[in-house]
Amino acid sequence: MLSEKKLAPLIDHTLLKPTGTEQDLQQLCAEAVRHGFATVCIHPHFVSLAKKLTANSAVKVCTVVGFPLGVNLSQTKISETQHVIQEGADEVDVVINMAALKDQQWTFVQEDLSSVVSAAQGKTVKVIIETCLLSHQETVRASQVCEAAGAHFVKTSSGFSSGGATLEDIRLIRQSVSSKMGIKASGGIRNRAFALELVAAGASRLGASASIELIQGE
Amino acid sequence: MLSEKKLAPLIDHTLLKPTGTEQDLQQLCAEAVRHGFATVCIHPHFVSLAKKLTANSAVKVCTVVGFPLGVNLSQTKISETQHVIQEGADEVDVVINMAALKDQQWTFVQEDLSSVVSAAQGKTVKVIIETCLLSHQETVRASQVCEAAGAHFVKTSSGFSSGGATLEDIRLIRQSVSSKMGIKASGGIRNRAFALELVAAGASRLGASASIELIQGE
Repeated sequence: MLSEKKLAPLIDHTLLKPTGTEQDLQQLCAEAVRHGFATVCIHPHFVSLAKKLTANSAVKVCTVVGFPLGVNLSQTKISETQHVIQEGADEVDVVINMAALKDQQWTFVQEDLSSVVSAAQGKTVKVIIETCLLSHQETVRASQVCEAAGAHFVKTSSGFSSGGATLEDIRLIRQSVSSKMGIKASGGIRNRAFALELVAAGASRLGASASIELIQGE
Repeated sequence: MLSEKKLAPLIDHTLLKPTGTEQDLQQLCAEAVRHGFATVCIHPHFVSLAKKLTANSAVKVCTVVGFPLGVNLSQTKISETQHVIQEGADEVDVVINMAALKDQQWTFVQEDLSSVVSAAQGKTVKVIIETCLLSHQETVRASQVCEAAGAHFVKTSSGFSSGGATLEDIRLIRQSVSSKMGIKASGGIRNRAFALELVAAGASRLGASASIELIQGE
């Protein structure tokens, strides 16, 4: 039954508010280890400490690059990816270049992302396409470009824009990419029922701060 | 009289929404040249194009580093600063490391900023301290740390957080730093009367998207 599905291994347990402290990070990592979340998703500033706090567990460390706007130079995204991997990051969530996307510079958008995939040296790369800012057509094209760039996941939202994941967007992304491509639903996922619906619609990872709420009853 | 003060030379004419296109940038730069704004303030992605669009004018190109959250690794802020200066940036607005600030790691916060000042090779550096997230005591200390790090301006806001410049914060920053330190008021400055009040309170630069509105009658 859908309601019995274990969500914990699908969740990136997330702390991305800029005012989050080391104490907040300690709590986040302890919760992730206790409940068996997939990763802790945190800012580059906290990667090395998170790595220590999750050592001797299966919890991976996920961080963000070009976050949350993505309108950096490609070379800066490459540098940031190299830096966070040196610090110990296992997964990288990078933001698509939204300005270039809106200018329909799809070749540029793809090369920007493939350069991050290269810099990530085989680590999992998720691309935040910020669906709330995109037309349906742009969501389809952006998702295809993520796959062509060699990324591993399309991620819906940064959590810092005007909206988060919707069932409609998850279904649209699912139809736009091959079955080997992951989809991370993120932004505004605050109860278990919605989380289960997102998974049923095609999401293979969930980004949430309210993760404990999502696994009630497991 | 205050109301007759020319604001145009104090204004960083700003386009920082991530969906801004090349057409938006062309309009921004044309307006800046026509009205004599201090700079155009834009994302790194647009620096080289903005440099071309403002050539043969007194308008400088200002861009942002570690924007808008600031919780990057120092080495990434250094790299991004080097990259944008290579592209032609004249001024750099960098975001303070908010997590380290909240953890009272003031030595770290200062070193993070002084490394950006060094990387900027003498270019003007403004530090966004995001006053809406700070206590009065933190605003005072953060402002002092900006000056100790060798930055040229304290800037109130990214425009991407919960609030913008207030008269109270400008006065507080003014009292916290020496007279040679600039103050950039930014975030939510949408009419001339408020802009003039901010200048009277101590702001020496104004960041605004509604810049044309601010210079009505000049």
